Amino acid sequence: MSETYAGRAAALDAADELAKYRELFTLDDTVYLDGNSLGALPRHVPARLQEVLTREWGELRIRSWEESGWWTAPERIGDRIAPLVGAGPGQIVVGDSTSVNVFKAVVAASRLAAQGRDEILVDATTFPTDGYIAGSAARLTGHRIVPVAPADVPAALGPRTAVVLLNHVDYRTGRLHDLPALTAAVRAAGGLAVWDLCHSAGALPVGLDEHGVDLAVGCTYKYLNGGPGSPAYLYVAERHQAAFDSPLPGWTSHADPFAMTPGYAPAEGSVRGRVGTPDILSMLALEASLDVWDGVEVTAVRAKSLALTDFFLECVAAYVPPGRVTSVTPAAHAERGSQVALRCEDTERVMRALVERGVVGDLRRPDVLRFGITPLYVGFADAERAARILADVLEG
Amino acid sequence: MSETYAGRAAALDAADELAKYRELFTLDDTVYLDGNSLGALPRHVPARLQEVLTREWGELRIRSWEESGWWTAPERIGDRIAPLVGAGPGQIVVGDSTSVNVFKAVVAASRLAAQGRDEILVDATTFPTDGYIAGSAARLTGHRIVPVAPADVPAALGPRTAVVLLNHVDYRTGRLHDLPALTAAVRAAGGLAVWDLCHSAGALPVGLDEHGVDLAVGCTYKYLNGGPGSPAYLYVAERHQAAFDSPLPGWTSHADPFAMTPGYAPAEGSVRGRVGTPDILSMLALEASLDVWDGVEVTAVRAKSLALTDFFLECVAAYVPPGRVTSVTPAAHAERGSQVALRCEDTERVMRALVERGVVGDLRRPDVLRFGITPLYVGFADAERAARILADVLEG
Repeated sequence: MSETYAGRAAALDAADELAKYRELFTLDDTVYLDGNSLGALPRHVPARLQEVLTREWGELRIRSWEESGWWTAPERIGDRIAPLVGAGPGQIVVGDSTSVNVFKAVVAASRLAAQGRDEILVDATTFPTDGYIAGSAARLTGHRIVPVAPADVPAALGPRTAVVLLNHVDYRTGRLHDLPALTAAVRAAGGLAVWDLCHSAGALPVGLDEHGVDLAVGCTYKYLNGGPGSPAYLYVAERHQAAFDSPLPGWTSHADPFAMTPGYAPAEGSVRGRVGTPDILSMLALEASLDVWDGVEVTAVRAKSLALTDFFLECVAAYVPPGRVTSVTPAAHAERGSQVALRCEDTERVMRALVERGVVGDLRRPDVLRFGITPLYVGFADAERAARILADVLEG
Repeated sequence: MSETYAGRAAALDAADELAKYRELFTLDDTVYLDGNSLGALPRHVPARLQEVLTREWGELRIRSWEESGWWTAPERIGDRIAPLVGAGPGQIVVGDSTSVNVFKAVVAASRLAAQGRDEILVDATTFPTDGYIAGSAARLTGHRIVPVAPADVPAALGPRTAVVLLNHVDYRTGRLHDLPALTAAVRAAGGLAVWDLCHSAGALPVGLDEHGVDLAVGCTYKYLNGGPGSPAYLYVAERHQAAFDSPLPGWTSHADPFAMTPGYAPAEGSVRGRVGTPDILSMLALEASLDVWDGVEVTAVRAKSLALTDFFLECVAAYVPPGRVTSVTPAAHAERGSQVALRCEDTERVMRALVERGVVGDLRRPDVLRFGITPLYVGFADAERAARILADVLEG
């Protein structure tokens, strides 16, 4: 049976148009299924960063703010990310962590909302930082937090709804939420939809502009391979930019930052989402890493991601003794992100054994094994091997 | 006359115990007097970052969060900075920009202040981001901003004072404010003193613990040479840590971040000042750059800084035609940071000509030329040459 799946994997890899992109990354014979936590290193990034260090910082020093384009990096890199999430230019700015951007987005959205709307709905199942930060934003702005599961959002919307903060893909289960429908419902109810794209950007089409999303944030170190803790980004739809009122109005978001006037006057456009001095080393590593997307269509990534998760689930079902794991990743494609999450006993021991045998995923307490599928560098043979070794470990 | 000053410079450089540290930096024959904006590159940093990229990210990938010590970098690097600003261990955490840390510090300080105290005093002459961010903090917390010059702080203190945000060294004039006396006055009035150390850390003794400072923030890319936009830091005095209530309670400041519980419970100690996922590439470049401080006493740095600024001012007075420049840097050592600021006409043209002739300073509109003095890599011959070329440019 293993022959059959291995044979199918070989054929699928041979037919895979994205297979060639694997060469762009530094990989070894590990099956790396943790790119949904930390993307692999694009091969050319160290040389580029060496140039930034030795030439731009070491030799040009302060001149690089202009001559090497450091100053405009946040918007420039934002425009590189934009097509990956379906945004036109001038709406994304890179910088700060996801948490800080959630804060900017939620506070600013609550200020954009109509007077009298005092509720911030937060995905109760989301990655916890979103809830913690939204709670802080609500406390500071006088709003009320309403925790709600994404499926229950439509019923919870009403005349008090100011902002709805949702995660596009659930970090534990890999469930993909219906961004177009939920955004439409939130907007129809008069609220603003803020999406966290950490687990979707770079893995599937997002369509921020097409679906009328109001604000969005995301990290760049998962499917975007920007490096550990690389800067996050903030999307502010063009229609909201003129009234976007940041709770973190740092000097680099000023209309004339070098005038250094005591009064704050915000810049136009996405620059308004900036805060302090951009973190250049991390930012330019991210910029370089985005080169791997040249010529890649997100729809092709999505197609391969679904084929890979299907195939991995099929191999798991075939190899793993019955009853040892249960998939908590939705079977329906429309509800699936780009990871497979398996409920399992004794996850700590199982994942340790997998890692020792060259299959790297991670776990989410108490009982979920996560396997991230990154179509630019994971192949079908990887999926087959991971399932086979998982079965071995669970039998052992 | 030039002979005399050049001769004195040579003798001073020969006797300088810190002269040997210059070798640790990548420098050329430029006189680099802009280290108060962007510190020079420590020579060994590119090799270290190459290792972080190729080995830690490229090969170990996700395992590096534990195995390469990435997860604990914010506190570990904070403890490396601590002795440079007179702080005991466990009180400084690195991450985010200065602006974001000002926000954390001012909001948290306003929550630490006694009930009913509703005023936040802000240095009216300070670097503008502090004022912008404090204004946002005040708007969100319901406090009132009182702009005040540092000299007028004692008179402005009273029963309504919650927080006083001050810059240790003025970024334009280079004036050093009296941190011990002002902190004592603020505390005696029942308020909390928050200091911005961007222009003092690494240039002169700060004595955070000794002088009872409540909270402090600072950047690391000026005198600490951490690289362009390298992460900033937050100091929370130990006595305030248990009640420190961050407005940015991101998941990495949670007591058990990987439990990923919906309820927020803050960690103990400096970890509480963290927000999102640490920005590892920039952070580890900073960590490496701090190696240049091994064996350096800040008192020796301060002594050389004062000798250099004195000598530079003396050369300027001797070389530059009368009336062309006026020093706005205080003559008294107790009031001087580590830069010389000269008021001058036509600063844009003058600084451009200086840069073309190999003397790099910068300007602050409308009429100030800034020359930063970084004692680890600037020598007396540099100061003499800069003054000589400045005189040439002003005569030309």
